[in-house]
Amino acid sequence: MAIRTVVWGENVHEQHNRIVASLYPDGMHQCIADALNADPDISATTATLQDPEHGLTQERLAETDVLVWWGHAAHGDVADDVVERVCNAVWSGMGMMFLHSAHFSKPFKRLMGSPCNLTWREAGERERLWVTSRNHPITRGLPDSFELEMEEMYGEPFGVPEPLETVFISWFQGGDVFRSGLTYKRGAGNVFYFRPGHETYPTYHDANVHTVLKNGVRWAFNPMARVKDPNEAPNVPVEAAPEKIEERGPKLHAEGEEGFR
Amino acid sequence: MAIRTVVWGENVHEQHNRIVASLYPDGMHQCIADALNADPDISATTATLQDPEHGLTQERLAETDVLVWWGHAAHGDVADDVVERVCNAVWSGMGMMFLHSAHFSKPFKRLMGSPCNLTWREAGERERLWVTSRNHPITRGLPDSFELEMEEMYGEPFGVPEPLETVFISWFQGGDVFRSGLTYKRGAGNVFYFRPGHETYPTYHDANVHTVLKNGVRWAFNPMARVKDPNEAPNVPVEAAPEKIEERGPKLHAEGEEGFR
Amino acid sequence: MAIRTVVWGENVHEQHNRIVASLYPDGMHQCIADALNADPDISATTATLQDPEHGLTQERLAETDVLVWWGHAAHGDVADDVVERVCNAVWSGMGMMFLHSAHFSKPFKRLMGSPCNLTWREAGERERLWVTSRNHPITRGLPDSFELEMEEMYGEPFGVPEPLETVFISWFQGGDVFRSGLTYKRGAGNVFYFRPGHETYPTYHDANVHTVLKNGVRWAFNPMARVKDPNEAPNVPVEAAPEKIEERGPKLHAEGEEGFR
Amino acid sequence: MAIRTVVWGENVHEQHNRIVASLYPDGMHQCIADALNADPDISATTATLQDPEHGLTQERLAETDVLVWWGHAAHGDVADDVVERVCNAVWSGMGMMFLHSAHFSKPFKRLMGSPCNLTWREAGERERLWVTSRNHPITRGLPDSFELEMEEMYGEPFGVPEPLETVFISWFQGGDVFRSGLTYKRGAGNVFYFRPGHETYPTYHDANVHTVLKNGVRWAFNPMARVKDPNEAPNVPVEAAPEKIEERGPKLHAEGEEGFR
Repeated sequence: MAIRTVVWGENVHEQHNRIVASLYPDGMHQCIADALNADPDISATTATLQDPEHGLTQERLAETDVLVWWGHAAHGDVADDVVERVCNAVWSGMGMMFLHSAHFSKPFKRLMGSPCNLTWREAGERERLWVTSRNHPITRGLPDSFELEMEEMYGEPFGVPEPLETVFISWFQGGDVFRSGLTYKRGAGNVFYFRPGHETYPTYHDANVHTVLKNGVRWAFNPMARVKDPNEAPNVPVEAAPEKIEERGPKLHAEGEEGFR
Repeated sequence: MAIRTVVWGENVHEQHNRIVASLYPDGMHQCIADALNADPDISATTATLQDPEHGLTQERLAETDVLVWWGHAAHGDVADDVVERVCNAVWSGMGMMFLHSAHFSKPFKRLMGSPCNLTWREAGERERLWVTSRNHPITRGLPDSFELEMEEMYGEPFGVPEPLETVFISWFQGGDVFRSGLTYKRGAGNVFYFRPGHETYPTYHDANVHTVLKNGVRWAFNPMARVKDPNEAPNVPVEAAPEKIEERGPKLHAEGEEGFR
Repeated sequence: MAIRTVVWGENVHEQHNRIVASLYPDGMHQCIADALNADPDISATTATLQDPEHGLTQERLAETDVLVWWGHAAHGDVADDVVERVCNAVWSGMGMMFLHSAHFSKPFKRLMGSPCNLTWREAGERERLWVTSRNHPITRGLPDSFELEMEEMYGEPFGVPEPLETVFISWFQGGDVFRSGLTYKRGAGNVFYFRPGHETYPTYHDANVHTVLKNGVRWAFNPMARVKDPNEAPNVPVEAAPEKIEERGPKLHAEGEEGFR
Repeated sequence: MAIRTVVWGENVHEQHNRIVASLYPDGMHQCIADALNADPDISATTATLQDPEHGLTQERLAETDVLVWWGHAAHGDVADDVVERVCNAVWSGMGMMFLHSAHFSKPFKRLMGSPCNLTWREAGERERLWVTSRNHPITRGLPDSFELEMEEMYGEPFGVPEPLETVFISWFQGGDVFRSGLTYKRGAGNVFYFRPGHETYPTYHDANVHTVLKNGVRWAFNPMARVKDPNEAPNVPVEAAPEKIEERGPKLHAEGEEGFR
């Protein structure tokens, strides 16, 4: 079965900005989904901020293998309960890929536990992404580096935790660098951040970017069954201890009692 | 100057449970602070849930080098704005040490970005902590392992991100194991989680635990000046780019405009 | 195509010790290969110390996707040029799984860059392995913990670098713990260390161990083309620089010259 | 007591190349040692390839807190037994800082367990180092970025293991990037790699580089007592097990016997 992927787009610039609308007439999310659907092993649909529950109901997340997120102008409009629902899905095993300005999205900040800030400049400068982890699955089919002729600059220091692996580092014409491909695990879920994708440039029409997107979905996908309750903290009864022990000493909790949260 | 340390205790069990009150007549927080103050390089005071703003005003956090946190029964009573203030202090460079049941405290969960769950059993069983990172500063003065005759069991899987380093792993009499000493960095701040410290046992009177507490504070302490605004994401003007570039291409933002959050 | 796997066994105890011979009449390597071949996606053959070039010619390594290594009594007899050949294969992308006493094998020590030492005790004690990374591919099909009724103890501190991920931690009856499943990347190659497998016990007949072995091979396998020369350090000519620059300043090297090693 | 630091230089270019000799009339090693000695907490001396045992006797290493290494043209002339001695010192707790072309030195390759290769170009281009880990001790006193007007380019992919932390990333005028500051731990020893320092440029006269060198020595220094034998793998007798167990099952080793290596 194909990897069930949902591309979430906030779908705001496309509605209000002529440049973005002309680059992505069906929305950035649809362009990304189309790129993913070119891979027979991926089955991508879309969801947007404007959909009821932002298109991310409990039921839909339960049937989503990988969620892709692009947001920018309307981070604050994403409902907190949907954010918590998305994080719980990640913790239970759903893969997640954050794109570009999603560095400041609520779910990314929630999953990183850090400011996720950076420096930036919108000047149409050249970006060159270098592979830093040889033969990493996310780099499959790519040369050692590739260019995007016009992109927004994101610069270090990038306020994220040290990743499991740094996969890409970007060079910018204006003199900055950025860790543009970073992998994480949160609970049972794989998380990938990929930098490029400013809305006023044709980044999501680029063939190398398509390759990364497809590889990213494949990497983030975990075929194992979801963890049923990723927040469960079970009180193991004394008689169920793997090794026989006898209870002793003072106690605060009654047998089988729930813990505090 | 000594390391200015604040030991935060929720101070609830001490008020309601005779066993805890007799073990820690001045409160667990005071016992921990006393242990730290035995080190001439540390100057520890206390703060509790019941204090105005939980004793953690902006002013006090600004003068705190390391914050130590013990909470359990009243995680939910900690005000969200204080949690955000604490996280901002960490991101700007304040060190932080989380003890035992603080694994489910709001600031720890916020900083980890993961469920922070585990299995547990309150049976007064023996715990033995093994050092897994040789000569790590937090292990200074300790043997390769040390025992606590009675402790609550915490068991894997522990729902936290892969740490920078695993410093201690615990063996439990009932057959479980736990990663009991874990280091992280969030923003500019060092974070250390240390497992032992159940309220009904005399753990915070143990000499080896005292050693870890003192080492932990020293490790978490960063003498560098705090980052002024740890969430800042400055728009770098084109003329301030390190390398001379000329602006080109379509733009969404006006020069010097604030970015979206 | 199935994952081409070679199980390397030193095949010494099987020839000299009746217990080992009776547990593994066809050799430990054959037992492991049989377990792997039960998976239709894996095609495992064997090689031993006694084979010419230890069965690991350049040609064979070039056609090996994953190499599994078990050694103990004869680490010193492994030829240094074969060790270098194996490491080069890993660096170019071959996966590698080290089992039990292979912690002191030449290729493992070479790839880790550290002492790889530990404490040990051969007393037939009970070992229980706990999963510490939820839904890690290597844990697929396993419960949160599983037991081996009799095993040799390996204890911390284990002299290896901090891994990419800690996947298993062992509890031992005698009071010790050990990081029993560790993942690394070296060059383009994935490396997995798995602790159990003492020669006088029936560990490689255990169903859960079989599951780990099969998962480990799948995890270590990288379908991408091998890096042609994993040690290449090319001098990039000035005119081939991605951005146009002009050479300036004093030089030590002539254009296109090889670097020093 | 000051941090006892030895700066090891191969001292070859200084003897054969007029440019290098004029930039570093007392040798690169002496220039680096002088920079370190400007810090009252550091006491630096030098050693060179030409000294007996390359100046690194067992006795001297035992009294060295941090070893700094610069080599290039004569990596192959470093005696293997000195390399092993140096690695053993690191594993026992000596700090070590590798500079620039020492990426291909024997001890660095030995400690990394990987190819340590990269791409390079000697064109006097501009390098700008960006801090990627906020308030890391090695960055103390530095701005977010600093420039070296002329340096040799080193480019990704850099064939090293994922570090504990990435501290600096370099931008190069010719379009390349490089992870220029990387931290590792090997055994009990802290290891720092710092990229800049090509022999034909005045890099070791730069004030920001001096700051990094001093910070690097302080970071790598571990005041704890050295591990006596960093390769020891003790057989723990059954009666010395932390928990009382009874020996059972078949055995290969006699009680107290040494293990195989």
